[in-house]
Amino acid sequence: MERRKVGILGATGTVGQRFIQLLESHPWFEITWLAASERSAGKRYADACRWKLDTPMPARIAEMVLQPNTPAANTEEVPRIIFAALDSDVAKELEPAFAEAGCAVISNSSAFRMTEDVPLVIPEVNADHLPLLLQQTSVKNGKGGYIVTNPNCCAIGLVLALAPLQERFGIEAMFVSTMQAVSGAGYPGVPSLDILGNVVPFIKNEEEKLQEEVNKLLGSFNGAAIDMLPAKVSAHCNRVAVIDGHTECVSIKFTKPATREEILAAWSEFQPLTQHHLPSAPEHPVIFNEAIDRPQPRLDVNAGKGMSTTVGRLRECSLFDWKFVLLSHNTVRGAAGAAVLNAEVLAKMDLLPGQIKHTQTGAGRELVSA
Amino acid sequence: MERRKVGILGATGTVGQRFIQLLESHPWFEITWLAASERSAGKRYADACRWKLDTPMPARIAEMVLQPNTPAANTEEVPRIIFAALDSDVAKELEPAFAEAGCAVISNSSAFRMTEDVPLVIPEVNADHLPLLLQQTSVKNGKGGYIVTNPNCCAIGLVLALAPLQERFGIEAMFVSTMQAVSGAGYPGVPSLDILGNVVPFIKNEEEKLQEEVNKLLGSFNGAAIDMLPAKVSAHCNRVAVIDGHTECVSIKFTKPATREEILAAWSEFQPLTQHHLPSAPEHPVIFNEAIDRPQPRLDVNAGKGMSTTVGRLRECSLFDWKFVLLSHNTVRGAAGAAVLNAEVLAKMDLLPGQIKHTQTGAGRELVSA
Amino acid sequence: MERRKVGILGATGTVGQRFIQLLESHPWFEITWLAASERSAGKRYADACRWKLDTPMPARIAEMVLQPNTPAANTEEVPRIIFAALDSDVAKELEPAFAEAGCAVISNSSAFRMTEDVPLVIPEVNADHLPLLLQQTSVKNGKGGYIVTNPNCCAIGLVLALAPLQERFGIEAMFVSTMQAVSGAGYPGVPSLDILGNVVPFIKNEEEKLQEEVNKLLGSFNGAAIDMLPAKVSAHCNRVAVIDGHTECVSIKFTKPATREEILAAWSEFQPLTQHHLPSAPEHPVIFNEAIDRPQPRLDVNAGKGMSTTVGRLRECSLFDWKFVLLSHNTVRGAAGAAVLNAEVLAKMDLLPGQIKHTQTGAGRELVSA
Amino acid sequence: MERRKVGILGATGTVGQRFIQLLESHPWFEITWLAASERSAGKRYADACRWKLDTPMPARIAEMVLQPNTPAANTEEVPRIIFAALDSDVAKELEPAFAEAGCAVISNSSAFRMTEDVPLVIPEVNADHLPLLLQQTSVKNGKGGYIVTNPNCCAIGLVLALAPLQERFGIEAMFVSTMQAVSGAGYPGVPSLDILGNVVPFIKNEEEKLQEEVNKLLGSFNGAAIDMLPAKVSAHCNRVAVIDGHTECVSIKFTKPATREEILAAWSEFQPLTQHHLPSAPEHPVIFNEAIDRPQPRLDVNAGKGMSTTVGRLRECSLFDWKFVLLSHNTVRGAAGAAVLNAEVLAKMDLLPGQIKHTQTGAGRELVSA
Repeated sequence: MERRKVGILGATGTVGQRFIQLLESHPWFEITWLAASERSAGKRYADACRWKLDTPMPARIAEMVLQPNTPAANTEEVPRIIFAALDSDVAKELEPAFAEAGCAVISNSSAFRMTEDVPLVIPEVNADHLPLLLQQTSVKNGKGGYIVTNPNCCAIGLVLALAPLQERFGIEAMFVSTMQAVSGAGYPGVPSLDILGNVVPFIKNEEEKLQEEVNKLLGSFNGAAIDMLPAKVSAHCNRVAVIDGHTECVSIKFTKPATREEILAAWSEFQPLTQHHLPSAPEHPVIFNEAIDRPQPRLDVNAGKGMSTTVGRLRECSLFDWKFVLLSHNTVRGAAGAAVLNAEVLAKMDLLPGQIKHTQTGAGRELVSA
Repeated sequence: MERRKVGILGATGTVGQRFIQLLESHPWFEITWLAASERSAGKRYADACRWKLDTPMPARIAEMVLQPNTPAANTEEVPRIIFAALDSDVAKELEPAFAEAGCAVISNSSAFRMTEDVPLVIPEVNADHLPLLLQQTSVKNGKGGYIVTNPNCCAIGLVLALAPLQERFGIEAMFVSTMQAVSGAGYPGVPSLDILGNVVPFIKNEEEKLQEEVNKLLGSFNGAAIDMLPAKVSAHCNRVAVIDGHTECVSIKFTKPATREEILAAWSEFQPLTQHHLPSAPEHPVIFNEAIDRPQPRLDVNAGKGMSTTVGRLRECSLFDWKFVLLSHNTVRGAAGAAVLNAEVLAKMDLLPGQIKHTQTGAGRELVSA
Repeated sequence: MERRKVGILGATGTVGQRFIQLLESHPWFEITWLAASERSAGKRYADACRWKLDTPMPARIAEMVLQPNTPAANTEEVPRIIFAALDSDVAKELEPAFAEAGCAVISNSSAFRMTEDVPLVIPEVNADHLPLLLQQTSVKNGKGGYIVTNPNCCAIGLVLALAPLQERFGIEAMFVSTMQAVSGAGYPGVPSLDILGNVVPFIKNEEEKLQEEVNKLLGSFNGAAIDMLPAKVSAHCNRVAVIDGHTECVSIKFTKPATREEILAAWSEFQPLTQHHLPSAPEHPVIFNEAIDRPQPRLDVNAGKGMSTTVGRLRECSLFDWKFVLLSHNTVRGAAGAAVLNAEVLAKMDLLPGQIKHTQTGAGRELVSA
Repeated sequence: MERRKVGILGATGTVGQRFIQLLESHPWFEITWLAASERSAGKRYADACRWKLDTPMPARIAEMVLQPNTPAANTEEVPRIIFAALDSDVAKELEPAFAEAGCAVISNSSAFRMTEDVPLVIPEVNADHLPLLLQQTSVKNGKGGYIVTNPNCCAIGLVLALAPLQERFGIEAMFVSTMQAVSGAGYPGVPSLDILGNVVPFIKNEEEKLQEEVNKLLGSFNGAAIDMLPAKVSAHCNRVAVIDGHTECVSIKFTKPATREEILAAWSEFQPLTQHHLPSAPEHPVIFNEAIDRPQPRLDVNAGKGMSTTVGRLRECSLFDWKFVLLSHNTVRGAAGAAVLNAEVLAKMDLLPGQIKHTQTGAGRELVSA
């Protein structure tokens, strides 16, 4: 099968680098276009990028020339699948422009996550929300482009662990306290003077995002819009001296009673995408680790090639029903990997540009419930 | 005034070292006796101790010879005020033996904190619980010794912040998620392989201690026993890569409504010990920091010479009433400094060995309500 | 080809864990025997081991039962190839016992590295020293067992970088200052209170080992003994807050002049084992990184699957001839991986138990010079 | 005595903050003027500064209004003693302008350290170089301003340890390998992604500065210029995950033989400023720590209130004569504290603006040799 051409907006940042790492040997996609801000456009990728991953920069990518980050400047070369790793304020301008130009913008930014006609998706959880994109103006007007988003890095790991619980027991309320890795802030990001031997109990807008995204992700698509889950969520977000891997402490109240065994079963039986053989979908989206002191970022961040959420310390909560700890890789599952998986499921659902037929509103539900 | 002679049990450990640091120039107390485990007894302090503080080991202490840690072995020399920095299982045997031998054992161990006739005290919060010690057998039988304890390192900082809120608004329920420093685990304590670039979401027995101690500390002494506060507490305890300073995220539900201004006023007006001029009592037990990203261990741990709790990020909770972050120095206010302050308040209340009169049950209440 | 059975002494420690990680899917070797100290013998591996690697403990290994660490106790089951990850003082007793019992003891310990008839080997550098093992008593007396060692974790990375320079320019003198990772000290190893936000400028015996091992490794085997290289080496060894990867700063004086280009050529052309297709030999033993601020542990430690040394910052020295920085993975190339590669080259040279013929003294030289 | 008015250029940076911390309660100086870059001028200090020290921002300073950083803009208010904490490229323009305007510019920048008529001074080492400032044009032309500099943060700690050795044994050659704290790079400075669990073996221009400054500092003032010491110095500079405190490994070759006892005596007897009672001069400029694993940043950085160099691990070098480790606080002794001590010694030598008489060329020598 010929690989589909894809481009990356914001290719030199830390999430852009992850996109390159994950896509360079992807069986379905081929990077043919890299864009960066004005300052870097025109430079060799290797010259413009301070590569911060512990695998080498692919030699082919190193030689690619960075394009300006507008669809207008280079209409012909821009591929119709664009992975976007932009800061929110830049995304607000650029992503609609690329959608308008006919591109599927698979975005990691927070800019449009809560927008009414923009799907906010974790494929294992709510792939059936994807047909919401058919309501975007740029699809309706025949240009065929659209924006699809993945959640905030904290919300992804959390909602992966929550989805099977919501399905079986219903979620009424939840506390979540996070200890987040510095890679989530990009590069240069968090100054070392702020985090060495320290904790910073504040991340701008993070608690708000986490609280609202959970309810959209666990909501249901009624064919026209997303009905939000009415769960109450209270988040405390903290930055800690970890490179990769967000740890989250959760206390949860269900609508139906749940035993320990039932919860463990819900997690271990949660494998909604298995039969679709998506290249980036982990075999086990949620892995329970029995050890008393797990999960830990250093030991568990790469579980499922960084695409699984590890849960542990399931125990009764003296205030709500249960409490547990979860860990998720914030730049793989929590950012670039999430977007790549979104693209894979869009391909599987025939929702990529060129594939879309206007009668397929129910496709997602079939896919995930198949 | 002549300084009272005091001894230290467990003098070579990290809390023992803090006792030495805090007591060596104390205006009321004079270290005359240091004890350690069998292996170290008989050695010069400097030879037996791996000093881990960033102030030098006092020269006088360096030359002192470590005594065996039993009252029997050296009845005459043992001072009648003993600060105990022992592991819980060792404390279980040794502390009662010293109490029985007539010593006031000012203990930092968890062994007897929840024992019915043992006061668990933070002087600013519940000094009026101290007369509970008069009910201990070794006091009643005329030997005059007893055990007084300070709380777990997490509970102290937390309850300092809670006490003024409990007084004005009543506490019904609370979530607390901690990020605790490695010094809390002693030396060698936490292996570096476990904590560098990592979070460990488990500390043995810590959540249980925190949950139960809060309610004893905020309970009331009815003249015979402590009536526990019936607040529901759910704790998540984590270890992070910080040397000193426990950070805690709190969500709290009050019995009466409280505005932001009222909460800030409760904290700033909380100065119960001021008039008693105790050497180790901080001018402000609770300090509110207005900055959006404070408190932080690196910047705030030494507030009030390590004896103040710093609070910050007061904001509404989408689930309970309010949430905030607090920080407290875990080996100063959370351990050695707590015990020293307990000793100071015992002295002020005439409850040290030699001072006790059997009619003073109400002394504490007077002291703190004076 | 049937895989040879191998055993691991000290299987539960950090180096033992690396042996398991590297050998479990090895094409030539099969782990059939794991031993640990008395305390752990008889337990399931999963119950006795605190696994500290970021890949999961192999399920098959988890179920294996730990054997006592003596050859006597279980003569029949002990495989004839033993990888030893023992503390030096334990190694002093156990390794000769296993050699005497007919085992090839491929040791990572320092106990016998400088012993006259024990090869100290880095396959790319001095595989031709291996026939020295034929002079060990347990080989001569027909029992067929022996001890072969790999160098200290600092010496390996250093000597890999030095070997091609020694060959072309001759090394006369050298300063080396190390910044070593905590995994080198095992588990629990370095207490976090000693290393968080800190540097410890002392590692017991490390400078001595580094200084003497370099000259044995770069010496030559005269058929009877090793003629040491007479280079002067002065080492400064430091511990830093890094999990894996030793960084070393080197200033070097050659006997012949060398240009920058000649040095870079010496490194890039250094591929002595390529034609032998050893499974653990890296394609490039020495990788030069051109960036001004490399190598760095976080970015380069896994180069060549952890088996390559990365060098960088080659520049003139105002005192000697040249200076540079190198980085090497201390528990892969610097410990377990080094021993596995030693075993592979022993197999290739027909020097494993059962393969040895007493006329093959020159084999190593042929192998490496072929 | 009335305190002299002083100003701070670059008051909001990390070194500027240290100046404030050290000067706010200084017995001789009073901060009356704070300047910052255009962006911050006109703001309250508290609003423009991200305070990163673990002592609170002084309340009086918080309310001061930042001035533009030019002498022209505010001729009348600018005090005649200016502490400058500017980046080198900014210093190049601003420092001469302030000198020309009649100010003594006590600079921490590298811009003019190696300039022929600019004293580069550590008071304990070469206060007798200070009269060199009388040769600066702005002194000669009667305006009375000048520039005096302190060395690079690495050079100060090093040269303090070297000066007594140079005096007694002569220094011929030296290797030095540093492990430098992140605070040396200012704020935001080193990104956490670059230093958490990592070492960066490169600091721009640092090795060059260290090598050349040593020889100017240890050189001698011949009445007209500095005769450089002709010692050969080779430096390796590294950044490590430490907040404050540069650790340096030194191998040294003397011109005369030196025993261990003689070296220790040279260090302990080195107290050149004692009789002058300068407020910031440490009682012991060089402190030898006997423990086998000291000095360490976490334990020793605050020795002498951050103004002493701690040395340790004195041992023979297999290549040169001796080797040792030293530690110095890089933002106290290595930056702001160094400049403050320079100002104190200038006051003592009657070299501050208003004090200068044109016949006092020899004053410095008298002072330090008195």
